[in-house]
Amino acid sequence: MNDAGRVADSGNPFRLAGSDGNPGRSIIDVHGVLFGGPEAAIIGGPCGVESKDQVFAVARYIAEAGTRLFRAGAFKPRTSPYSFQGLGSEGLALLDAVRREFDLGIVTEATDMESFSDVERTADLVQIGARNMQNFPLLRRAGHSEKPILLKRGQGATLEEWLLAAEYILSEGNPRVILCERGVRTWSNHARNTFDVSVIPAAKALSHLPIIADPSHATGRRDLVIPCALAGVAAGADGLLVETHCQPSSALSDGAQALLPNEFLILVNHARKIKNDLQSISANLGLCF
Amino acid sequence: MNDAGRVADSGNPFRLAGSDGNPGRSIIDVHGVLFGGPEAAIIGGPCGVESKDQVFAVARYIAEAGTRLFRAGAFKPRTSPYSFQGLGSEGLALLDAVRREFDLGIVTEATDMESFSDVERTADLVQIGARNMQNFPLLRRAGHSEKPILLKRGQGATLEEWLLAAEYILSEGNPRVILCERGVRTWSNHARNTFDVSVIPAAKALSHLPIIADPSHATGRRDLVIPCALAGVAAGADGLLVETHCQPSSALSDGAQALLPNEFLILVNHARKIKNDLQSISANLGLCF
Amino acid sequence: MNDAGRVADSGNPFRLAGSDGNPGRSIIDVHGVLFGGPEAAIIGGPCGVESKDQVFAVARYIAEAGTRLFRAGAFKPRTSPYSFQGLGSEGLALLDAVRREFDLGIVTEATDMESFSDVERTADLVQIGARNMQNFPLLRRAGHSEKPILLKRGQGATLEEWLLAAEYILSEGNPRVILCERGVRTWSNHARNTFDVSVIPAAKALSHLPIIADPSHATGRRDLVIPCALAGVAAGADGLLVETHCQPSSALSDGAQALLPNEFLILVNHARKIKNDLQSISANLGLCF
Amino acid sequence: MNDAGRVADSGNPFRLAGSDGNPGRSIIDVHGVLFGGPEAAIIGGPCGVESKDQVFAVARYIAEAGTRLFRAGAFKPRTSPYSFQGLGSEGLALLDAVRREFDLGIVTEATDMESFSDVERTADLVQIGARNMQNFPLLRRAGHSEKPILLKRGQGATLEEWLLAAEYILSEGNPRVILCERGVRTWSNHARNTFDVSVIPAAKALSHLPIIADPSHATGRRDLVIPCALAGVAAGADGLLVETHCQPSSALSDGAQALLPNEFLILVNHARKIKNDLQSISANLGLCF
Repeated sequence: MNDAGRVADSGNPFRLAGSDGNPGRSIIDVHGVLFGGPEAAIIGGPCGVESKDQVFAVARYIAEAGTRLFRAGAFKPRTSPYSFQGLGSEGLALLDAVRREFDLGIVTEATDMESFSDVERTADLVQIGARNMQNFPLLRRAGHSEKPILLKRGQGATLEEWLLAAEYILSEGNPRVILCERGVRTWSNHARNTFDVSVIPAAKALSHLPIIADPSHATGRRDLVIPCALAGVAAGADGLLVETHCQPSSALSDGAQALLPNEFLILVNHARKIKNDLQSISANLGLCF
Repeated sequence: MNDAGRVADSGNPFRLAGSDGNPGRSIIDVHGVLFGGPEAAIIGGPCGVESKDQVFAVARYIAEAGTRLFRAGAFKPRTSPYSFQGLGSEGLALLDAVRREFDLGIVTEATDMESFSDVERTADLVQIGARNMQNFPLLRRAGHSEKPILLKRGQGATLEEWLLAAEYILSEGNPRVILCERGVRTWSNHARNTFDVSVIPAAKALSHLPIIADPSHATGRRDLVIPCALAGVAAGADGLLVETHCQPSSALSDGAQALLPNEFLILVNHARKIKNDLQSISANLGLCF
Repeated sequence: MNDAGRVADSGNPFRLAGSDGNPGRSIIDVHGVLFGGPEAAIIGGPCGVESKDQVFAVARYIAEAGTRLFRAGAFKPRTSPYSFQGLGSEGLALLDAVRREFDLGIVTEATDMESFSDVERTADLVQIGARNMQNFPLLRRAGHSEKPILLKRGQGATLEEWLLAAEYILSEGNPRVILCERGVRTWSNHARNTFDVSVIPAAKALSHLPIIADPSHATGRRDLVIPCALAGVAAGADGLLVETHCQPSSALSDGAQALLPNEFLILVNHARKIKNDLQSISANLGLCF
Repeated sequence: MNDAGRVADSGNPFRLAGSDGNPGRSIIDVHGVLFGGPEAAIIGGPCGVESKDQVFAVARYIAEAGTRLFRAGAFKPRTSPYSFQGLGSEGLALLDAVRREFDLGIVTEATDMESFSDVERTADLVQIGARNMQNFPLLRRAGHSEKPILLKRGQGATLEEWLLAAEYILSEGNPRVILCERGVRTWSNHARNTFDVSVIPAAKALSHLPIIADPSHATGRRDLVIPCALAGVAAGADGLLVETHCQPSSALSDGAQALLPNEFLILVNHARKIKNDLQSISANLGLCF
């Protein structure tokens, strides 16, 4: 018997996240972008907030690509205490400026209870990161938020544990949870993580919640991002979270996993096309693409 | 230092499988179907050869779907010595009959040195299964074959080990090797294996060999097969190996991972569409879809 | 390049946890029991605090076995929001009663910032659980505690990530951190987790911190607990955290991974013997057993 | 449902390897050394056969340590076709010379059908390597051998698959199979493989076959070999397969995982002591140490 296989509770463990008794799929509106609908919802943006010049430069081409959601971290959870932990509230102010200037919705991470309210004020969609997927007090706090929550899968979490983490948020009264697959840790070593693409249709079989893919963290290699992004959409993902280059002007010299502006534009267009084409097959097969 | 990460040799370990010095991508013709070209190459068929009625029934709808390659196992490697090991040479005779009756190319597995020559005579494409990916004498034997080889990835094999297994075949003089991703073993437990979709573009970055995906073994769940098949093609796979139902007449009662005839037809059409659409993006980005 | 292999920072990432410049090994005194010294430090106790009768019954035989540290959870992090979350402060009160009655030191888990101070008041050793290994605010809080900290390894965490988690605590000023290996999640399925025994000497090669093993969570099977406990000590563990049966009177009918009283006693005696015998080999080889 | 968890057949899948109906444990005599008895059976020797000087130098200190079984590979399965594949029959001749000169029993690997008979003639114990654990024709051939077989666990194989591989050998009529745990492939990256120590008692719970540990391949780091070897014995292993240094005279400059002569001697003595001490606990608990 493997720990990974155990269902936490007998009966349906997913009272609110589960498909049973929840007819239809949830559609969640973030700044006018619908997650769970017939179109691919795209979020783009740099690794983290670094400066006004940086976020404005990226925000400009995100907006020009016709996407409406901008992501960047002001608070960064870091493996080492000696690494840069983000600009904090100064970063949030820059994100507010991005919204005003470009009319982009803001997606940014809440890393702890202390800063949750500040993040929540700025964000249109509050991210709970992979490391915090089982930070239960933080999940409960997210359950009291007025904002929708983007819940990343833990790098070692099963689908069941992930949906039960969503259940923590839902059971506190916030019905707006979007799942995000970002790769899991395995021995397969050609990429930073293993993009577990089959969890997308598997999640849809169990849950009505929208689910998107983050091919940037799932692979850690720029040359794998577009293929995996399209794979995610082809497997039924409702959208994408894509890391775009922080400093397009110096793009050739750094940014191991971030897309260049022209790559981002091509990706967005092609992902939308694949998503649209899937609507017909979806109707024929009773699958949820 | 992790075993998985070690390159076997210094210098380029992939003398023949590698992209270096091998301009362009290999295109391999199997019974008139091109692997590595602009169209998706599809192989369909049941788990194993069971009877004339069974293989003819499946072959008929494979052919009617417009696909030209039929796969079924006459020799079956089994985890337990007490499990059915396949019809053997009787099975090969039935596959010969399928070719004559339906003009389908035959894809079937060679499990050992003893039966290799018989399998080779019947097959248009000889499969080396996942368990034999590091059976080096068998790989060398495949290297002396006049037939192309379908080399499945071992369930615990890294990309490097897989390409070095291909190198065993290539270095004996057979240049026609097609790779096949069929899922790897991880702790992620919503499906039988983890479909490692990012290995498809990663293999193309290192090697000129065609690569296809087997979403049936990669997932073991019928409801995940089509989403993962499309994901594989969207990630750049040159084709698909899909398990179709052995007894379409009793389809509802068994066949945990096999597609029904109508599902197979929809899959084939949609996979071809995605593959075609990728040609434009491929040209724009310099990626190999 | 695999994510798991990256060192977070260049230079020595383990400024305080690392062996460099920290001559000798740390010895940490918890209620008179030394972790990191020549004797095996043993902690026993039930899954969670359930009632006075239960904790007193277990505490009695823990004390009679000659061990001096009692562990039980008052706050229980649970995968599902609908599972029992522990007795909370009522449980802490029962643990205080155990200390008074049996003179046992108390080991219990702090699951969030809110209850940390209460837990800290009762505990002689505050446990940070596997799910919270990268809950960085909680680690920083532990770094301000006057009590020593037992830091469990995350089920998907590398040795480096684990030591960097310890570094969060150390860098806030609390030098007393004890590591605890409790099994990691892999595909190997004969036990609930995979007891990664080689991490014990590997941790000692990098760090001066004491390290113990938790064979109960590492296996989830009572029949594997004693063999793995002894394996941990033979590999150099400084001690053990062992789950003992909550209701010895009904032991045959439940408790998948908990030891019976007589098994616990035999384990304690044998672990001590192995530990003592290792001192001679240690001196001969320059290894840290 | 996870592939790893499926039992191949309903009923008892381990007809001959299983404990059911096989009262007591198997004891297998190899050159006078008993595997499965109360003493630890030790096999030592270098990576591969390189020269007469090399094997004689190592054999001398193996014999002087009081151990009676010598292992070295004449045929080496290699990941790359371009790597050195062993001395072959010339290497077997050198192993014959070692037996004559030092009265050591020989343990060496059979990698294919072709060389099996030659290997069998020289070996007192024929090794089937990890890559060949599911090479079923080779297993059947081993089942017709008059010599006992050392069956290494595949690096991605579950306990069930391993025991079913043993079943292939047993069902052909050879009752003398010794299992060998040599580490499995996981994401945990402080060592080359993950030494899955709990599989030792888990195998003993299902099967009467002797089981030994190979801490050298399980870790790939010399400083982890002794701790893991002792851990294996403490967990109940019936013996050890240990890689010792090929050229003791140049020992400081190479040999990432091989023990030096004095380390080997200390290991042997301490492993025997732990094994002996376990006999008492074994009697008290009904466990098979």
